[in-house]
Order: sequence, then structure tokens, then C-alpha cells
Amino acid sequence: MTQDTFPSWADVAPHLVNVAAGRAPADTIVTGGVWVNVHTRETLPGHDIAIAKGRIAFVGPDASHCKGPNTQIIEANGRYMIPGLCDGHMHIESGMLTPAEFARAVIPHGTTSMFTDPHEIANVLGLKGVRMMHDEALMQPVNIFTQMPSCAPSAPGMETTGFEITAEDVAEAMTWPGIIGLGEMMNFPGVSNADPQMLAEIAATQRAGKTVGGHYASPDLGPAFAAYVAGGPADDHEGTCEADAMARMRQGMRSMIRLGSAWYDVESQITAITERGLDPRNMILCTDDCHSGTLVNDGHMNRVVRHTIDCGCDPLVALQMATINTATHFGLEREIGSITPGRRADVILTSDLSTLPIEMVIARGQIVAEEGRVTVDCPHYAWPEEARTTVNIARDLSAADFRIDAPKGANAVTANVIGVVENQAPTKALKFELPVTDGHVQPTGEVAQIALVERHRATGGVINAFVSGFGYQGRMAMASTVAHDSHHMIVVGTDAEQMALAANRLRAVGGGVTLFKDGEELALVELPIAGLMSDQPAAEVAAKADQLLQAMQDCGCTLNNAYMQHSLLALVVIPELRISDLGLVDVRTFDFIPVLESQT
Amino acid sequence: MTQDTFPSWADVAPHLVNVAAGRAPADTIVTGGVWVNVHTRETLPGHDIAIAKGRIAFVGPDASHCKGPNTQIIEANGRYMIPGLCDGHMHIESGMLTPAEFARAVIPHGTTSMFTDPHEIANVLGLKGVRMMHDEALMQPVNIFTQMPSCAPSAPGMETTGFEITAEDVAEAMTWPGIIGLGEMMNFPGVSNADPQMLAEIAATQRAGKTVGGHYASPDLGPAFAAYVAGGPADDHEGTCEADAMARMRQGMRSMIRLGSAWYDVESQITAITERGLDPRNMILCTDDCHSGTLVNDGHMNRVVRHTIDCGCDPLVALQMATINTATHFGLEREIGSITPGRRADVILTSDLSTLPIEMVIARGQIVAEEGRVTVDCPHYAWPEEARTTVNIARDLSAADFRIDAPKGANAVTANVIGVVENQAPTKALKFELPVTDGHVQPTGEVAQIALVERHRATGGVINAFVSGFGYQGRMAMASTVAHDSHHMIVVGTDAEQMALAANRLRAVGGGVTLFKDGEELALVELPIAGLMSDQPAAEVAAKADQLLQAMQDCGCTLNNAYMQHSLLALVVIPELRISDLGLVDVRTFDFIPVLESQT
Repeated sequence: MTQDTFPSWADVAPHLVNVAAGRAPADTIVTGGVWVNVHTRETLPGHDIAIAKGRIAFVGPDASHCKGPNTQIIEANGRYMIPGLCDGHMHIESGMLTPAEFARAVIPHGTTSMFTDPHEIANVLGLKGVRMMHDEALMQPVNIFTQMPSCAPSAPGMETTGFEITAEDVAEAMTWPGIIGLGEMMNFPGVSNADPQMLAEIAATQRAGKTVGGHYASPDLGPAFAAYVAGGPADDHEGTCEADAMARMRQGMRSMIRLGSAWYDVESQITAITERGLDPRNMILCTDDCHSGTLVNDGHMNRVVRHTIDCGCDPLVALQMATINTATHFGLEREIGSITPGRRADVILTSDLSTLPIEMVIARGQIVAEEGRVTVDCPHYAWPEEARTTVNIARDLSAADFRIDAPKGANAVTANVIGVVENQAPTKALKFELPVTDGHVQPTGEVAQIALVERHRATGGVINAFVSGFGYQGRMAMASTVAHDSHHMIVVGTDAEQMALAANRLRAVGGGVTLFKDGEELALVELPIAGLMSDQPAAEVAAKADQLLQAMQDCGCTLNNAYMQHSLLALVVIPELRISDLGLVDVRTFDFIPVLESQT
Repeated sequence: MTQDTFPSWADVAPHLVNVAAGRAPADTIVTGGVWVNVHTRETLPGHDIAIAKGRIAFVGPDASHCKGPNTQIIEANGRYMIPGLCDGHMHIESGMLTPAEFARAVIPHGTTSMFTDPHEIANVLGLKGVRMMHDEALMQPVNIFTQMPSCAPSAPGMETTGFEITAEDVAEAMTWPGIIGLGEMMNFPGVSNADPQMLAEIAATQRAGKTVGGHYASPDLGPAFAAYVAGGPADDHEGTCEADAMARMRQGMRSMIRLGSAWYDVESQITAITERGLDPRNMILCTDDCHSGTLVNDGHMNRVVRHTIDCGCDPLVALQMATINTATHFGLEREIGSITPGRRADVILTSDLSTLPIEMVIARGQIVAEEGRVTVDCPHYAWPEEARTTVNIARDLSAADFRIDAPKGANAVTANVIGVVENQAPTKALKFELPVTDGHVQPTGEVAQIALVERHRATGGVINAFVSGFGYQGRMAMASTVAHDSHHMIVVGTDAEQMALAANRLRAVGGGVTLFKDGEELALVELPIAGLMSDQPAAEVAAKADQLLQAMQDCGCTLNNAYMQHSLLALVVIPELRISDLGLVDVRTFDFIPVLESQT
């Protein structure tokens, strides 16, 4: 296992003391900046920062006594010196990037600490997949703390994951050097119902003195919520309105408010601070999920902080929510989150506290980005063959695998159809009457076919059903091995042959997303690692993802970024209708229902 | 070793979840109070608290779903429900009481959590003395967390303690169940100079994930202070002015501001919050030292909070400084410091948030005090013989032991005299010309004799010198085995025979404080445990201490509470002149100087 080789405060304290006292030279001094102090919530002009062995040795009006002949001098020139930004909860896999490439993408945006839950790979590769993510995380020049995934499968009995996470797995992971706590406890009904496994996972985390992440995705703030809180989750990022944020903070949790690529939960909750005047110390900013395109084009935590300020939040308060609040929450306030002695020297230079241009990023004492360019290596883990061969399908599929037989003699049938809704994660449970040709039910008009192809154990399982709302026309199919949460393969198409082509292509390349039209591949995002991630740079992945979106439009899809809807069609914990490797799931009742309801 | 037998949140979470959900009955419900929420800094009327197994299971507008046939109902009747108060740093020995009797004294004042540094007993009995305090602490119905003493002796080379504390002792103590961190690192020059032992103690604490207490007793906020901060102390309670508080908070420490029996450091520092507007999250209230009389007559943490409010602080902010701020500092924010699910059910009922009458105190779910009366047992540790026989003097002393020989043939001599200053800890280095009679230098007028009688190893050592300022007249002597920090015996008197009487009396009773006049004992405070503490109730100890002060006055002393000055005369880390078992110490230069300077 990769160890955390960055020396601790205790390891280097003698040297830090000597530098602060002027008896030893600093490695680096940042001179003449405005010290943004997130402890006191002040800006203090005319300050220097002396750095040694990757940590802060001294902050004061004059660090010249710490200067030696080889000390590197960085002129702040009156700019603000803010602590490196922390993302309080996120999933690296959502960027379709490995930790190394994710780090490389976000470093220029000033993110120097991330609290990541490798939940997706846990579904594909189990505990050993988590360890691979954890190990690559520890190799990076910035701080990536791993939250041990808590819920794989997220809906036991409704789907089959590649691997399952047990309470014993959680207890073992708590001994790893980079584990900071338990990842979002999504099985909130389980906690509220005192499910022994869920409570055992929480207990293992609490006994290790670590932080239990929450995920309470329900508007019910009554006893069910109270029971969830009593179970131990210490934060929650599923709030969507002011009352959610207030309830969580009042109950002693930290309210994480998120701005991801598709999550817009800051504006509706920041009012708990800006209008209701609650103590802001218990609010934390996070992204949860960011696509590579967002990272390339819009930013990362700098985007979140800027947005929070745009929503009316005091810039210093917003910065606290992305620095010291996060650090305190995870028991790291003496390690990261502020520019004070002993802490890791994670410092951003910016000339404006509201628009927050990220002009220089220092992490662990070294310059890691300047003016948007990364200046440091982000080492790649040697991902084993096992992680690159996860699309485990025994044979190539044929059109026959995607044909839906009609009841004998039927001319038309009524089908239960998953209804996709633009810009929303929930689906609708719809019914359509569909024609029958040659004994097979035909997709037509608004309705396309959807198939869930088992890809973890080569069972040969293919579950076929129908989906509406994408607007696809002509002969096409799109397939993806990103299929939350169990990450089998989702194929959506208007034509069984195109569906087979797309599925076989992903089998051949080891995972990703592809779109075929009339026998030709219009776009391909290769995700060879666990079928979830690329080890290519974010810009390349983003370009391919853009090409994919273009191909979806070329096939008639008019929805905004419907790739998200595609990849969530198997997420059997969000209503109303989903598909899993076990069948068509009515998430309102957690029952399997037939695809064809009756014949006419 | 005594274990912490109070069940953890993880231990009882299944039951708490069931209570919160209404599936199991609460043990106790407090109904209809104003929820003082220290997370959000709000008061929320009309709330109930449901308690089970000593922890909070539910807080909400209506806990009736948690009520069973045997649930105890406590009517708050619209009163405020505030979290039990926390004392962020203190020494139990200062009350001359054992942990049990100290707890009994402060529980009615609403103190339910204390962070105690048994520094005094460490000087007398070493690590095993610390463990005795630690063990009695864990037996109490309230939370007493022990800080492992860091500095015994506090001035190596200038005094001999009963035992010394080593870095190995610190590392061992970090494994004990009740140890919360390192006690105040008083050797601040040592830290600033990178003394290996001091940094090893800090490192052992940091590696255990615990909190390093600070003690930086210097007005120098330059590089010496910076070097101290870089060494790792996470808090400091020695600040005396606004600039001190601000400097500490800006540097990422927590500023502890204290109101003890003789410390008045709140008013001068709270302005950092009330006038400068700094984020208050990094300020913590504490007492440091309280005499039993203060506990009996004035209160404890309720007195500090009330005073802080009187100094202009918002009551909710002041309460945060005595609850959640303290809890967060010590890594206990999910354990104590707020009334929220999972936390220990430490709750005070009060009808006024400013004057803070403590009407009911609940600790760990049970009522521990009502209207000033304790309603619970505070168990006594079986203090071993070893702890009760610490006045280790081989033989009774005689007047001859306290005679100071003059140089042969001298009629008068110039003596270096310790000058006591009213209401201050520092002394003055004075010179007096003293007469010689029968070959002995005579105390006269303002000048009395002082003797430091070795009492740890029965060496027979008696160091004689002179002191001025008490105003004693006639033939008297006062002796005390409380003699910070090494706690030998200090005898001050006008007459060698009375000095011998007083010293022998303390030898006979095993420690304490006594005053003799003309051969009669006017007052005696017996402190049989380590010569520092009584296991009698605070009221009895306070009454005896009052009697002692009266006796001092009867002997001519006009100083305010000069017992404090008496007990600090051997504190060889505070200027200017002190006495130790090794001689007369000029603390300005850390040199030993002769008692008699020259003859005339």
C-alpha cells in the first residue's frame, strides 16, 4: 500500500522552530501579501509567509530573519494570500479521470485538498478498487483524503454490484494512511431503521476517531431525519433548500452545500447564513460531482467560492467554508485550511477576493500552478490489469440479444417506459402502446429501447426495456459502462443492431461511452480503468465528451447534457422507474415490474 | 487503571436511533424549553430533548413520540436549555480539593466538563500521581479530561522536584483512556529554542492525535513567540491584553481567556471579539486556578460566562466560548459541548441567559444538581498510603535549622531580600541592612525570614533567606507544603522557634498550611493528599482557608489574600527573586545569588 510520505508537523517541528526563530533559513518566503486569515476572518496587509519542508514556519509582517542565501522569494506584490481550497465531498470518478489527472485538472483552480469518496470504483472492484484510488491519491502533490465508501450496493436486493462493501471492509480501511472517514451513508432508510450493517460501518468509523459522511436525500425533516442524525452521520450534502441547511446545522451536523456540474444547491441554502444569520462555521462548500468539461472550462472550488460570493455571501465567510470549516470538520484544522505555522503550506495568490483569479498555487511549499498552468508532476499509479479488464462479457452480443419478444399473436402491447426528464435526476414511470413486428415489440416515436448488460461476472444477462424523452431518431445506439451505481453497461438505442455494435465496442475497448449511427461510430470516450475513468488529461477527455454530446444531438437528442440522464438510468435509489441487472424497478415501491403490461 | 465506562455514541447508536424514530422509549424528556443552539448561535423556543443511555437521542419541537410509560419528564417551563459548561484549562489542585470534591463543588454551578492539568501532583508524585488524579477523574458523574503535565520541573537545574516528567512518560500517558492532550507547555523558552525533550513531548501528543496545551507567559510577540507557535502548542491562556489574544488567534492557536480566583484576563481580551470583531470561534473561557472559597461563594464557569457577558459579550457568543468552542478544540465536538443527538446529555436549565442562574444541571442524562444542591455521588478514589505520606522529612526541625549565621564579627549585614508585591505574582529583588545578634542575622521591621524545607527525599535540606512585604509582627510563622511548582515546604516567620513549630506540625499532619503565633496554632488547613489536597468538601476547606487568612491578618499582614504570594515564593520561573531547595534564585538571570551580600 502507498504510504503518506509527507512529513508530519511533529517530524519537522524542530526545523520549523529554528526557521521561525531565525536560526535556520526558510526554503521559500512569500513577501508582501495580504494575509487572508480564516481563523479570525480578517485581511491583514503587509505580511510575509516563511515556508520550510513543505510547511508554514512563520507568518508575520517581516520574515527577513528567516531568509538564507538559497531561500526562494515569491513576491506577492500586495495580492491576497489565501489558503488552498478544500472540496469537502466529491467523487473523482465523476470527472471520468483518475485521481492523478483529476488533480492535474483542479490544481490550477486552487484546489489543494479534496475529500473524495471512490464510491463508483467500489461497485466495480470492491475494497481493492478503493485502495487503488487511495494509493494514487497519496502519490499526488496535493492533499487527496479518501472517504471509505459505505454503500455498495446502494440498494441491496435491487441490483448486483461487482463487489459489495462490508462492515469489515470499512473497519479495515480505517487503518489505511489516507482514509479520513466514511463516505456518504446513502442508505438513509437503513440508518433510520437501525440496520445493523449500516450502524456497524458508522461505529467502525467513529471508533477510529474519523468523520462519518452523510447523505440524507429526503425532504422529510421529522423523526426519520432525527433517527438518521442519531445514527451518527456528521454532515450532509443532499440539502436543497434553506430549511434543509438549517435543520442539519441545528442538529449538530455540518451542512455541505454543493455546486457541481449538475448540482446547484448553494443559492437556495446560503441564505441560512446571509439572511437568517446563523453561525457560518458549520457550513462547507463542495462539488460532489464535476465533469471534466466543467474542470476545463469553468473551474473547480474557485467556481464554487465565486458563486457563493455572487449569491451574496461575504467573501471571507465563503473562503472559510472552503478552507478552515472543512479542515475542522475532518479533524485536520492543525494540518490544512489556514495559513498559520505548522500547517501544510497550501497558499493561493489572487488579486481579487470576489472574482478570485487563481494566479499562483503553492501546495506543500512548492509552486504547483501559475496563471492556469500546472508546474508539477501528478504521478500515475500503475493500475493493474485487473482494473483495466472490468468489462467482463463472455461473448459478443448480437441484435437478437436486444429484441423484446411480444406475447404470441399480439399486434401491439402496453409497455412500462422510463421517462427521462430534462435537467433532473428523477424519472417518470410512463406507459406507451407500442407496435409489434415479426413478434418483437418495436421502439417508435418518442420511445427508444434501453438495455442493461451485465458486465461484472460475465453472466450473459441482458435486461431489455424502454425509455422515452431522449428524442433519438434514425438507427442509432449509445452505450456506457458508467451506469450508477452498480456500473453495468447501459445501452439506449432505436435499433437492436446498433445496440449490439455499441455494446461490443465497449467490450472491445474495456469500457467507456460510445455512440453508433447507421453502423458508424460517431464518438467514443474510452474509460479503460474500471470502465469509469481515463488516465488521459482532462482536456482530452472533455473534448471527447463534447464530441459525444454533439453526436447525441446529431441523433436528434435536444435535452441539455443528456449524458447525465443516460448514466443514471440504472440508479435504483432515485424514483420513479429504473433498470437494473435484475429487472425493471419501480423505485416508488422498490418492486420489480414487468416491461410489458398487457397485450391489446 | 480506571477505565472510562461511559458508553460511546457508537455503543448506543442503535438505541438512540430507535428512540429518535419513536420505536423505543426515552429515559428522560426535558419538555418545553428554549433550545440554546451553540452550533447556529440561536435560541429556539418550544423544544423538547429526549435522552437515552446518558446521551441525547432527539431534539425537536415535540418529543412525545419518544415517551414511554417509564420516561421521566422534566418540565423546562420555558426556561433556557444550555449545554453543560466546559472549563478549557484548569488545575484541580488549586482548589486544595481532590477531583471528587472539586467536581462536587462545581457541579451545582453547571460545570459538566473540565480539562485539567494535574501539574502540581506531578511535581510531588510524578506519573503515578497523575494517574491517581486521572483515575479519580474518570470515576466522576461529570466529564473530567486529563491533560498530561508537560513540565516537571518547570525550571530544570534551578529546583529539585519529587519526580520528573519525561517524554517517555508523556508518550505512555497518551494511551490512557482519560488523557485528552498535553498540559500547558510552560517551558516556552525551551520550545522557542527547540529543546529536544519539549519537542519530543509535543510530538508524542500530536502523533496521538491529541491537543497540545500552551503557556506562553511573555509579552514578546516577535520571533520568540513565532518559534513557540511553530513548535506546536495549540492554545494559550497566558495572554493578558487584546494584542495577546489577537496574535494567538491569528496564528491559528485558540486564545483561552481566564477568570480564576486571582486571574482577571477576560475583560482585557474579550474586546478582540466585542470591539475588533474577530471571529469568536477561536476564543475559549477557562478558570486556570480557583480556590475553594471562590467555588463556594462565587461559582465556577457560570461566574466566568456571566463576567464575560458583563464585559459586553453577546450571551450566545460567551456560551459558545464555554461549550462548543472548547469541545471543538479538544476534538470532542461530537461528544460534548452542544445539545444535539449523540452527544452526552449535559444540559443546564436557567431562566436568564445573562445572569445565568443555574437552576438544574443534568450530566450524562441524570440530574446532578438542583437549585445549588448536588444530587449525585462523587466517588472517592482509594488514595494509596504513598499519596498520603509525601511530607518526607527525616527528623523534627529545631530553631537552629532556621538560624542564619552572620560572618564572624559582623554587627550588621546587607541581605538580598525577596520583596512581595500585593496582588501580583512577580516579586522584587530588594536589599536590606539587617542587624546581627549572637552571631545570627535577625529579621527586623519589614523583613521576615523565609525557609525552603526539602520534603520529597528527606535530604534534611533547609534553605534560609529573607522576605519582606507581608507585614508580620510579633513571634509567628506560617508554613505550607503548597509551594509552586516543586512543592517543597515554604516557611515564613519572624522567629526561628515558631518556624520550627510550624514546619514540624506539617510534618506531623502530612501536609497543608499552618500558622503559629507565640507557640499556638491559629489556623490549619490539612492537605494530606500529596501535601496539596484535602478530600473534605469544598465548604470545609474554604472555611479553614478563611481562618488562615484571618490568622495572617492577626499577625499583622495587611495584604489582600497573601496566601497566594506565600505559596508562589518558590516559583522559580517568575521574576525577580525566588527561593528553591537549591538556593536563592535571581529569576532575571537564572543565577543563584548569596543571601548575604556583604558585611558592614
